[in-house]
Amino acid sequence: MALFSVSFAPSGGSAEVLEGTTLLEAAGACGIPLHSPCGGQGRCGKCAVQAAGGVDEVKPLERAVFTEEELAQGWRLACQARVVGAAQVAVPESSLMVEHHIAVEGIEREITVEPNVRKIALRLPAPTNEDPRADLDRVMDALGGDVRPPQRLHPLQALPQVLRSSEFKVTGALIGDTLVGIEPGDTSDAAYGVAIDVGTTTVVAYLCHLPSGEVAAVASELNHQSQYGEDVIARLQMAVSEPEGTALLEAAVVDGVNRLAARAAEAAGIALDSIYEIAVVGNTCMTHLFLGVTPTGLASVPFVPAFQEAQTVRAAALGIAIHPEAVVYVVPNIGSFVGADTVGVILASEIDRGDGLVVAVDIGTNGEIVVARGEDLYACSTAAGPAFEGARIGSGMRAAAGAIDQVAINNDVSYHVLGDVPPRGLCGSGLVDALAEMVGAGLVTVQGRLRRPEEVGPLPEKVRGRLIENEGGMEFVLARAEDAADGRPVVLTARDIRQAQLAKGAIYAGIVSMLEEVGAGPGDIDRLLLAGAFGNYISRESAVAIGLIPAVDEGRIESVGNAAGVGARLALLSVAERRRAERIAQRVQHVELSESEGFYDRFADAMMLRPLPDEG
Amino acid sequence: MALFSVSFAPSGGSAEVLEGTTLLEAAGACGIPLHSPCGGQGRCGKCAVQAAGGVDEVKPLERAVFTEEELAQGWRLACQARVVGAAQVAVPESSLMVEHHIAVEGIEREITVEPNVRKIALRLPAPTNEDPRADLDRVMDALGGDVRPPQRLHPLQALPQVLRSSEFKVTGALIGDTLVGIEPGDTSDAAYGVAIDVGTTTVVAYLCHLPSGEVAAVASELNHQSQYGEDVIARLQMAVSEPEGTALLEAAVVDGVNRLAARAAEAAGIALDSIYEIAVVGNTCMTHLFLGVTPTGLASVPFVPAFQEAQTVRAAALGIAIHPEAVVYVVPNIGSFVGADTVGVILASEIDRGDGLVVAVDIGTNGEIVVARGEDLYACSTAAGPAFEGARIGSGMRAAAGAIDQVAINNDVSYHVLGDVPPRGLCGSGLVDALAEMVGAGLVTVQGRLRRPEEVGPLPEKVRGRLIENEGGMEFVLARAEDAADGRPVVLTARDIRQAQLAKGAIYAGIVSMLEEVGAGPGDIDRLLLAGAFGNYISRESAVAIGLIPAVDEGRIESVGNAAGVGARLALLSVAERRRAERIAQRVQHVELSESEGFYDRFADAMMLRPLPDEG
Repeated sequence: MALFSVSFAPSGGSAEVLEGTTLLEAAGACGIPLHSPCGGQGRCGKCAVQAAGGVDEVKPLERAVFTEEELAQGWRLACQARVVGAAQVAVPESSLMVEHHIAVEGIEREITVEPNVRKIALRLPAPTNEDPRADLDRVMDALGGDVRPPQRLHPLQALPQVLRSSEFKVTGALIGDTLVGIEPGDTSDAAYGVAIDVGTTTVVAYLCHLPSGEVAAVASELNHQSQYGEDVIARLQMAVSEPEGTALLEAAVVDGVNRLAARAAEAAGIALDSIYEIAVVGNTCMTHLFLGVTPTGLASVPFVPAFQEAQTVRAAALGIAIHPEAVVYVVPNIGSFVGADTVGVILASEIDRGDGLVVAVDIGTNGEIVVARGEDLYACSTAAGPAFEGARIGSGMRAAAGAIDQVAINNDVSYHVLGDVPPRGLCGSGLVDALAEMVGAGLVTVQGRLRRPEEVGPLPEKVRGRLIENEGGMEFVLARAEDAADGRPVVLTARDIRQAQLAKGAIYAGIVSMLEEVGAGPGDIDRLLLAGAFGNYISRESAVAIGLIPAVDEGRIESVGNAAGVGARLALLSVAERRRAERIAQRVQHVELSESEGFYDRFADAMMLRPLPDEG
Repeated sequence: MALFSVSFAPSGGSAEVLEGTTLLEAAGACGIPLHSPCGGQGRCGKCAVQAAGGVDEVKPLERAVFTEEELAQGWRLACQARVVGAAQVAVPESSLMVEHHIAVEGIEREITVEPNVRKIALRLPAPTNEDPRADLDRVMDALGGDVRPPQRLHPLQALPQVLRSSEFKVTGALIGDTLVGIEPGDTSDAAYGVAIDVGTTTVVAYLCHLPSGEVAAVASELNHQSQYGEDVIARLQMAVSEPEGTALLEAAVVDGVNRLAARAAEAAGIALDSIYEIAVVGNTCMTHLFLGVTPTGLASVPFVPAFQEAQTVRAAALGIAIHPEAVVYVVPNIGSFVGADTVGVILASEIDRGDGLVVAVDIGTNGEIVVARGEDLYACSTAAGPAFEGARIGSGMRAAAGAIDQVAINNDVSYHVLGDVPPRGLCGSGLVDALAEMVGAGLVTVQGRLRRPEEVGPLPEKVRGRLIENEGGMEFVLARAEDAADGRPVVLTARDIRQAQLAKGAIYAGIVSMLEEVGAGPGDIDRLLLAGAFGNYISRESAVAIGLIPAVDEGRIESVGNAAGVGARLALLSVAERRRAERIAQRVQHVELSESEGFYDRFADAMMLRPLPDEG
């Protein structure tokens, strides 16, 4: 038998193959993997290529798939066309099986993009007297054996018209192994998903192009639940005690998700109904409220969530207006107060893979802490409260335009303001800086008491003069009224300092308690990961100086950005990462700090504004 | 170790068991199977029994399940309580695993009741600090390993309240392997389903109590689609050609199902939301329209249904108001014009089990014919039309009050009327009788021509006088105006006779064509089954006399009642029967009569009004 050369464009590969070899086999020999879910039986039309030169005659199966015009242009099914001479083959992208790799924000790692949502273009043979298969069977046969037929009515109801209006060239949309839509024409590239981090304070949405894994747009807004209470406890109370509480809180976050999806879709120039899936992280209370589940069991001892495992529900059932058959995947919880967001942090930072003693701290409204050593994984939530997000601090604000985010005290107080505007308030990183500088200058004692002007040591008058007594007690003026927006000074009061101490004390004591679970102390930490926006902006020096985080070498501290949000994206883009998230949620030991021996003593120590552990 | 006697009420069984044996094991030794889906781990509370005498102390797990009062009454979990002396145990019915057998109407056979819907009463341990499992995990653990968690939001959303309001005594409702509801208290007996036969002319609903398999109520009504066209072809045209055609036809049948379910539930005194499943049979066009699928592919060659396999959809998605999570199971089709109703006939009559040469004829609006011999199973649909249901016959009517259902011609015409009323019209069995008697009396020729008075032989004047000429041609008066309701005579016209000939010719020719597929003739038939209400009422002698059915021994003809409806009930009551229905649909060879060689010649022969095959 003769050998013939077959070359493939645009890859440029070529191979010498025996006469009678199919183009599908020839492509395989060149390392060019073509789609062939039907196993080369000519039923799915997915291996369409344009061939010139020595290929055999067109088969009846191919006539059912291609128009006369397409056949004239050399279109063939690679599985049916056989080599009978030297041949040149052009492979369209849609026929090519590709694996994409993406690098995720903040954390340097690559994952293989294999989303739960897949869209597969099909060229089906039209029915004949010899092939009177039912419309649905025709589609299912082309998709291959592992696909589940539609579980809902709409795809089936539309099927006869869709097939006939598109001349049997359609795209199957799959969520998991279930066929959820059959669309006319080739729409395989129009496949999007949204990863959402439902924070107690902020909701962030990442619109992702699923075939490539790339982020097409990002949108965020305040969690509108804030109108009902600034922290988790307030919302929990509302959900459990008011008749419509859960419904109102659910509506607030679902409306937000709809706004964010619409904004992101508009920014990316795509249609909302090309979004097939949403992956969600959030703390346990947030994921309960997002699903409209009253968190009754979280409101009293023994604290028990309604669900722990991952949940998959229809987006439409939640009132989310994307593709009508789209689903929402909620990453699993770890326990009653350590939620899917912490699973996201672990997923993104890979600290579950066991490499030394690693501590991850996510300072949001709650401070979640994860400690990993070898096979051991412990997590807890501290009731740190939203002080570092600006709440409960008189001049506090989020890290937005007008926020003082850096503070230094030398001859005078100097500060940096976000945006090109006069200062309006103080954000978390500014608060940490201010505390550290004020303790350093002797304005605040290690115990947290704001000194009176007559108590402080030698200080420039420009600094000392900022200590003033008010009706409510002592306060320190960071930005004077004449320098500030709206003529309102940015100050730090004795009460503000107490709030900051409570928050940072809870976090530090949590870290120490968790380290004890693995028989270690702060000095044993190999890597300290700071998650959350806060972790990106904070001065590590100041954070160590006031004992917010343990005094470890600067080189061992890493900011990992919005790791929870990255975790949501990983769960959206990769089924393997999703399974890993589920294993993580099962594996992590949930520690209830209030039941942890000696926690309150540690908490009292940790309130001190000095580097900790106190080696002196 | 000591041996002790344990006796069980009410069964009366007893066994000698070793000290330390659990009551669960002791019950097993007596052949008394108790529920224990959690595998005897004390988690599901399903093996509750009342014990007296030598049983050991109550375990903490049991304290979580029973109230103090119940414990004082001797309630124990059989898996936890161990024998320490002679003991007497009372087993409530709810703890007993039972298999029910039922006999189905018309056809003598027993099936094991194992419905797709199951309800399982659970007594769950309340959460403690030591057992902080999530609410859902608590339920899922008790149900055992093979159960899938709720796939929809509602059961999860209600869960925390349901568990706490019922002191953790709940009932899990399962459809297939999926948990679809968690109800407070023990509601395991409130489990119903509806089997529905969507006929082109009539819709029949059987409300069944699923745990026992018994029929709780039956309701039927005309298929309201009839307002849009009396036969399948008319409705097909409307669905395909009018913009809202499918929607109108779907609404007509869905509204009917809602009415029938409500009427049956009222008759049985049960709540609509204790109906968890509907099983549906109907011809291919009916099942398409029922699901709102436009049967585009059925409207032109090559005839192709949109789906062939069984469909399971949510009842709520169809607008059927029963339990909100209830599902509708549609029995699979065989082909474009042989539907789920024929699968039901085969299921009910068991002719797929291969016992001689069996022919089943279902004379509804279409005449479906099944021929079985050994492994071979063939089915076809004849375009018989609704003549035997009273349509297209001038005085035709359904077999209801006022219908002449039997006719004899001797000295005069005598007839029997259904109900205690004057005659209003002629139903199918009356039509067959009338034709046979009229041919026998020489009033009608074997070719189907209605003779003029002067052409007939010697006949009593009371008979001859009924032959009258009208504007439209000849007609024969069966009931005179003065004897009939509303003063309108019941007559049979030349045109009516032609319609009946066309219908019976199509059926007979179909039978002969199908027999040829297995290489047999009418003389080889071992059993001839007549399905449908018609089959119960028809005079077999008359049917043979006019050649509607082959001339086989009377002893070989059996009426099997509404076998399609029985098939729907079997699919509702038994998962095994449902799987058998799916295998049958795959196995039956669909014969397109119009493509069958020699069909039209056979059809012409079969129009003759004489016993067939014509051996003379």
